[in-house]
Amino acid sequence: MVTLYPNERIDQLYANDRKIIQSDEVFSFSLDAVLLANFPRVPKRGRIVDLCAGNGAVGLFLSQRTNAQIIQIELQERLADMAKRSIDLNQLEHQMTVHTLDLKDSLTVVPHDSVDLVVCNPPYFVDAPDHKKNPNPYLAIARHELTTSLDHVVKSSSQLLKTNGRLALVHRPERFLAILETMSKYNIIPKRVQFVYPKRHKDANILLVEGIKGGKKEGFIVSPPLFTHNEQGEYSKEMHAMLYGPANE
Amino acid sequence: MVTLYPNERIDQLYANDRKIIQSDEVFSFSLDAVLLANFPRVPKRGRIVDLCAGNGAVGLFLSQRTNAQIIQIELQERLADMAKRSIDLNQLEHQMTVHTLDLKDSLTVVPHDSVDLVVCNPPYFVDAPDHKKNPNPYLAIARHELTTSLDHVVKSSSQLLKTNGRLALVHRPERFLAILETMSKYNIIPKRVQFVYPKRHKDANILLVEGIKGGKKEGFIVSPPLFTHNEQGEYSKEMHAMLYGPANE
Repeated sequence: MVTLYPNERIDQLYANDRKIIQSDEVFSFSLDAVLLANFPRVPKRGRIVDLCAGNGAVGLFLSQRTNAQIIQIELQERLADMAKRSIDLNQLEHQMTVHTLDLKDSLTVVPHDSVDLVVCNPPYFVDAPDHKKNPNPYLAIARHELTTSLDHVVKSSSQLLKTNGRLALVHRPERFLAILETMSKYNIIPKRVQFVYPKRHKDANILLVEGIKGGKKEGFIVSPPLFTHNEQGEYSKEMHAMLYGPANE
Repeated sequence: MVTLYPNERIDQLYANDRKIIQSDEVFSFSLDAVLLANFPRVPKRGRIVDLCAGNGAVGLFLSQRTNAQIIQIELQERLADMAKRSIDLNQLEHQMTVHTLDLKDSLTVVPHDSVDLVVCNPPYFVDAPDHKKNPNPYLAIARHELTTSLDHVVKSSSQLLKTNGRLALVHRPERFLAILETMSKYNIIPKRVQFVYPKRHKDANILLVEGIKGGKKEGFIVSPPLFTHNEQGEYSKEMHAMLYGPANE
């Protein structure tokens, strides 16, 4: 039995049979989390850290692809608590743990240079005075760089990762140049990017990027484009498969 | 009347009614030139410079989109001569000129800070000792950085461009990080990129990028993906339109 608080619900990601506690008032995962969980090359075993874990969606969805230990770091106690209960709900206590922690302090719970893969779905927007923020503090912190920043995320990732370990981020294309610069600053060499477009003839609105700590500078791959929706505004075949599993044909 | 040398032929780009002198032994344009000519925002008037002009394809194809003067710089005399004869063939002497010149010396024929748009389809491959080069010197110089380099191209472009002038390059995705770094080094801020994929589910094999001299760092756009071919291996509808004009429907 798992406790549900008022206005919480249990959603299911059909594609990988994971249940997750959500709340529109606190946090519910977006397509971005699903895209990120499907993007990186995932180690079969070892250690994965999910930074800015929110209600735990990325780690939960990843857990089916690997036997690695998955450690989730989330600053907001209310969200970390949701993530913990979702782990119980899926009986994944042997594989997953959650720490309520500022990601800057990750090294207090995970040894440095010990992680095979860091995944992160960070706040996308810089904390500029003229930016409107959501009056809901849970959502404001998840969306704007109020309590962390791109620099902190990448710096912490670099401290956690083994040499040749990978960092995978989902972010916004408008931050792409800063992402590349920041990765290079902390010795994570960008190796592969995939752009996600809302439809066939629109600009990209989501960016997935993977870098290798201490990797070689040569070689950079731009993976096939992903479209989240078709011309009719329905989920594309690929997006549908990530959400509901492969179509029966 | 225009002179044709042995093994030269006249091809036509149907989409914009331009004729061009080609030779498989010396130089003939690729899809990349067509893609580049269709990519950038083009000034209606003013001055455009086409660096690494080859047989002049990019400038010729651009000429229909603008009344700007188009100045082509090509190091190889044989190719520059082909480009000159193609200008005559299209009666574009009033709009286009060719200089047989190392692009490093562009400022001897074009004033600095005077250009609205620089386009360049440069050699893609670094000159590494272990890289096989084409035994045909015309083709080797066009493909490998034997006589110029990314750094020279971007440096010269930056010298030529007005503040807020644009540089548009076609290149290979594997050089993407170096391209971004080099642009920033010479104060050309990358603003927009478009990836070109050979087919729907393949990695990108061509990159189009546009930067603004002295531009703001904020804002970066990833334009809709382009596919050169469909699943059947025929030109995609968009590629077909760039080559043969819009389909009659």
